[in-house]
Formats: sequence, structure tokens, C-alpha cells
Amino acid sequence: MIILNGGSSSGKSGIVRCLQAELPDPWLAFGCDSFVEAMPAKMQASDEGIVFAADGEVIVGAQFRALEAAWMNGVVAMARAGARIVIDDVFLGGAESQQRWRKALGGLAVLWVGVRCDSAVAAGREVVRGDRVQGMAASQADVVHEGVFYDLEVDTTHTESLVCARAIAAHVS
Amino acid sequence: MIILNGGSSSGKSGIVRCLQAELPDPWLAFGCDSFVEAMPAKMQASDEGIVFAADGEVIVGAQFRALEAAWMNGVVAMARAGARIVIDDVFLGGAESQQRWRKALGGLAVLWVGVRCDSAVAAGREVVRGDRVQGMAASQADVVHEGVFYDLEVDTTHTESLVCARAIAAHVS
Amino acid sequence: MIILNGGSSSGKSGIVRCLQAELPDPWLAFGCDSFVEAMPAKMQASDEGIVFAADGEVIVGAQFRALEAAWMNGVVAMARAGARIVIDDVFLGGAESQQRWRKALGGLAVLWVGVRCDSAVAAGREVVRGDRVQGMAASQADVVHEGVFYDLEVDTTHTESLVCARAIAAHVS
Amino acid sequence: MIILNGGSSSGKSGIVRCLQAELPDPWLAFGCDSFVEAMPAKMQASDEGIVFAADGEVIVGAQFRALEAAWMNGVVAMARAGARIVIDDVFLGGAESQQRWRKALGGLAVLWVGVRCDSAVAAGREVVRGDRVQGMAASQADVVHEGVFYDLEVDTTHTESLVCARAIAAHVS
Repeated sequence: MIILNGGSSSGKSGIVRCLQAELPDPWLAFGCDSFVEAMPAKMQASDEGIVFAADGEVIVGAQFRALEAAWMNGVVAMARAGARIVIDDVFLGGAESQQRWRKALGGLAVLWVGVRCDSAVAAGREVVRGDRVQGMAASQADVVHEGVFYDLEVDTTHTESLVCARAIAAHVS
Repeated sequence: MIILNGGSSSGKSGIVRCLQAELPDPWLAFGCDSFVEAMPAKMQASDEGIVFAADGEVIVGAQFRALEAAWMNGVVAMARAGARIVIDDVFLGGAESQQRWRKALGGLAVLWVGVRCDSAVAAGREVVRGDRVQGMAASQADVVHEGVFYDLEVDTTHTESLVCARAIAAHVS
Repeated sequence: MIILNGGSSSGKSGIVRCLQAELPDPWLAFGCDSFVEAMPAKMQASDEGIVFAADGEVIVGAQFRALEAAWMNGVVAMARAGARIVIDDVFLGGAESQQRWRKALGGLAVLWVGVRCDSAVAAGREVVRGDRVQGMAASQADVVHEGVFYDLEVDTTHTESLVCARAIAAHVS
Repeated sequence: MIILNGGSSSGKSGIVRCLQAELPDPWLAFGCDSFVEAMPAKMQASDEGIVFAADGEVIVGAQFRALEAAWMNGVVAMARAGARIVIDDVFLGGAESQQRWRKALGGLAVLWVGVRCDSAVAAGREVVRGDRVQGMAASQADVVHEGVFYDLEVDTTHTESLVCARAIAAHVS
């Protein structure tokens, strides 16, 4: 299992697609985006669920956390059942978010990967994408890494996603 | 946990969105579409993975089945961890596909729902959608239900998806 | 040139895809959705542009109208240059919206098609789609047809989109 | 009117979104992607229409060219009617493609912008995107620029799209 953590527009999902293309074995990709898509639409405008504020802040409520905990357990169960899994996540709570994963992992081996990107560059790429609330990239760029342990860090500021993916793939045997 | 089974373009995912909107508790939605999206793109053109033939036939290989089994186990683990889960699936193997779910469920209670749609009507809706290989709807309309047990069946041929969803929701308390 | 008018979730774009599939000659499809996509994202939250209110109301400003007029002229120019064009639009202003098209058409022959759908049924389909602001279908179902002249009307309440498309195609030779 | 030309995955559409965000006036964005979307789906697998070969080659037929000529005329008509228009195109025929635009423009002023990207880097970004036939980026990177005149060239190999967009915006007053 590989867990990538990085702010919005840092390039995580592109790296995941490259990892899936480069790694010889089949890896399933899940992440915070596919989790949010699985939730009822009405939870995306609810204090109990997840709120994307106009300034880019993301606030999650109790119902979100409860479902997320169950989802993490399920994803880990998939890995225990034999599937190779790569996760891209945004550790809004930094070390606390990593702790949530550790609890779900219960000892299962994982490669922790930090995906960094200069805040201003990520903000620019947010404009390029055009499908995200402006401000998420800048507000998340640093806080998501606070107190987080990594086996490996990549930085997409000056390095192409495919090159970053190859560096990660080299750690998977 | 609710498992919906029906052929392509029978209206399953629309019913799922309605269920998520109608049911007071939050339900997570997963299904064969989100599972295929989680796979590496290269598995979608591989005999080991899944092949969408030009005539609408869908053929899945050994690697697909292995990952699917792990995925099913994980989804069931999410439910056991407390999440309400609704699945929309296409039982390409009919009763055999249901048996795969039963094995993963290991006794967990589930509401089995059959989503039927007249073959010609489903084929017409496939044209309307415009994003699917033509022929899937017609070839799957009947075979996916062969030998399958249901707690409840709905038919979208003459009934709106929202009305079907309400009939299903009435069975969930 | 064919111009379809109907409220949100009345089934216009599905009918357009069917028309493109059924008609032997190639028809280009444009409409209010593709026009809005062509606009800068920032115009979608601006009084000058277009605002999708939380209750389903859609309000358009002066800048939107100016660009729309130029866009209509361009679409008509494509038709005059030999392309077959099918438009799906939402006449928020009813007869006034049709008048805008007439001005751009300047005498070019067009098949006016009304796409009706019972308000409650369209509202249900809005839930099924899950990607639209709830309330648009109900608020637009009737007003978009006020004072509008049609060569042909179809009703998707009880008739499949493909069947509606065939009725329209029969008027095109 | 601004016309951007560059190979697949060179970053054109991202630059367009940035231009729309940066420029104070509203600019409408069209391009080969939105044109292909407007075509009947059946033209995307037809010798008369457009064929995306498995190796990344793109072949267009007579019907495509006829519709494209009408579309170009219409886009130019929008500009003449007062809309600011930015186009992103792939000049598969190099200078010949530019000549097609010149014919449609009939003297209308346009800013010609070349969007370059190193072939290997563009091929890598094609993997990152994951939604394109692999091989298009490499096969188009150079040929689309052959014999083409530009007012301005940008290169996304080592420069962020937003920075490229600002360089272009500086030429628009």
C-alpha cells in the first residue's frame, strides 16, 4: 500500500495515474476525491459533511469523519485481501490525519510519500485546472505536511509528475 | 447494505443518486463503474483485465476477478465498520456473480434489488446517454438477472427512477 | 437548423444525441451548456454574467447577453456556411428569447421544437442526474414555453427521448 | 481574437483557462476539442470524420474538413459581432492549417501564438492526464509548428502555464 499526501493541485492524482501506468502489477487507486464522490451530494453542503468555503478553506464535520473512518478500514481490508492500493489524500489535520490512517492500518506496511509543491506554483496550477475553488492550493500547501512522517518526498515544483512517479516506483519492489 | 443489480443503461446509478438524496442517513455509493475507474487504465484493454468489445460484450479476466474479490471484501469491511453502503453492479455472471458477493458478505445482511428495464428501451437510453458502447444495454438486459434472488425488484421501463428509489427506500428503516 | 427549447432536465441534450445518431447527415450540436462552458469561469459567479441561485433560479446579466448575441450570430453563420446545426436552448425569457434567435437568424429557415416535460417529472429527473442545482427543472418547466411558436412539440413525460428524436427527425429531409 | 496552436498535451487549454481568468474583459474559448464534441459521436469512428489511431495518429476526412470550414467561419463571425474569442487548435497540417484559418478570418486581426513543449515532456504529461491516446503528444509536438507564423511563442517545458498566459495577456490591450 502506498499513501500519497499533498495539498490540492500539488499533482497527486497525476502521479497516481503515472504509478498505475509504470508499475508492472495492477494497483487500485482511491483517494479523498473518490471518497467525496461516494458521499451523498447533500453532504457537500452540510456542516456535518464537507464544506468547500469560497476562500478555499475545507471544513469537515462529524458525519464525514465517521464515514471516513469506515472507508479507511475498508480500503485497508482490500489491501489485506491481496489488492495493491495507492491512496492520494490531503492530510488537512497533518500528523493527526496520518494517525487516523495508522489506526486503520493496524500494522500493515505502507510507503508514506509526501508530495510537495511550492505554494505559489500550486496556486497557479489551480487556475490552470479551472475546476477547483481558488485558494485551496495555497491554504493547503504547507499545513498538510506538518508533523507528518514520510519514507519519501517528491516535489512537483520543478519536476515532472512522471519523473516523481518513477522515483516512487523505485521504492516498490 | 443495499446491492442493486441490473444491465447497462437500466437506470441503476440514477436510482442510487435518488436513494442518497431520499434516505435521511448518509449512504456511501460504490459500484462496478467506480471500481473500473480505480483500476489502471491499461487494464481496460487487457485480456487479464476488462475488455469492452465493439458489439457491447464485456469480458473480464483473471486479474480483474482477483482485484474484484479484494474490493468486495473491502466494501463489506466498510459496512461492518459502520458505514451504510449502496452498491450498483452488473451481474455479468448472473447467479454466480451474486454468489461472489455472498462469499464476501459472510452473513452480513443486505437488501438485494433487481433493476429491470425492457431491453429495447434500455438500448434506446444507451443512445440517449451517448457515452457507452452501443450494444451493452441489449446484451445485458436479461442475462444479468438469471438465477438471481431479490428482496425487491423495480422496473424503470415505465416508472421514473425517483419513484423506483422511493420503493426501495421504503424497505430501509 | 433545428432549435430545441425546453426547461432544465426536460431531456433536450439526450434528444440531441439521438438526433445526431439517427439523422444520416452529420449535424453539429451546440447549446446553452456549451456556450456557458466557453465563458470565463469567473462569469459564472458574476451579476454581469450568469448566476445559478441556490433555489434553481438562473439570472443572466448584460455581459452575458452581449456575448450570447455574438454567439448566436456565429452559430447562424456556421449554418449559412453549410453546416447542419442543432441547438438546445432554455428560453428563460420565453417569446423574448425566441425573438433574439429570430434576429440572429435573419430569415434563415429553422425547425422550432418545443421539448415539454411535466414539472414534477422533470424535478425528479433533476435528482436522478445529481449534477444540477435542485429547483431549476421545476422553475423552468412552463415559463420557457410562454408565447413561443413551435413547428413541432414533443413531451418526454411518458415518451422515451429516442422516440421523441425520431418524431423530430421525420420533419427533417 | 487569439489563436493558440500546439501539439496535444502541450498545455494549451490550461493556458486558455488562465487567459480567461487574467484578462479583464470576458473572452469566449473554443477549440478543436469543443468542435469534436459538437460532432455526432459516430463521426469519431469514421474515415469521413476523425479517427484517433491506437498509436496516437489523428486522421481527419472530407466531412470533418467541410464542417470545420463552416465552424471556422462561424467563430470568426462571433468575433466580428463583437465577442473576444480565444481558440486552441492543433494544426495537424502545419502551415496549411493556418492557411485555413486565414481564409476564414478574411483580414480580421488575430494574435498567433505557438505553444511549444519538448516532445518527451509532453509525452510524460500525456501519461499524467490519462485520458488521451498515448502517442498523440510525441507525434504532434513538432509537425504542428512546421511553417507556421507566430506573433508570439511560449514554451511550457520549463515554464508554468500561468506564466505563459501572462506573457500572452501582455500582448492584448
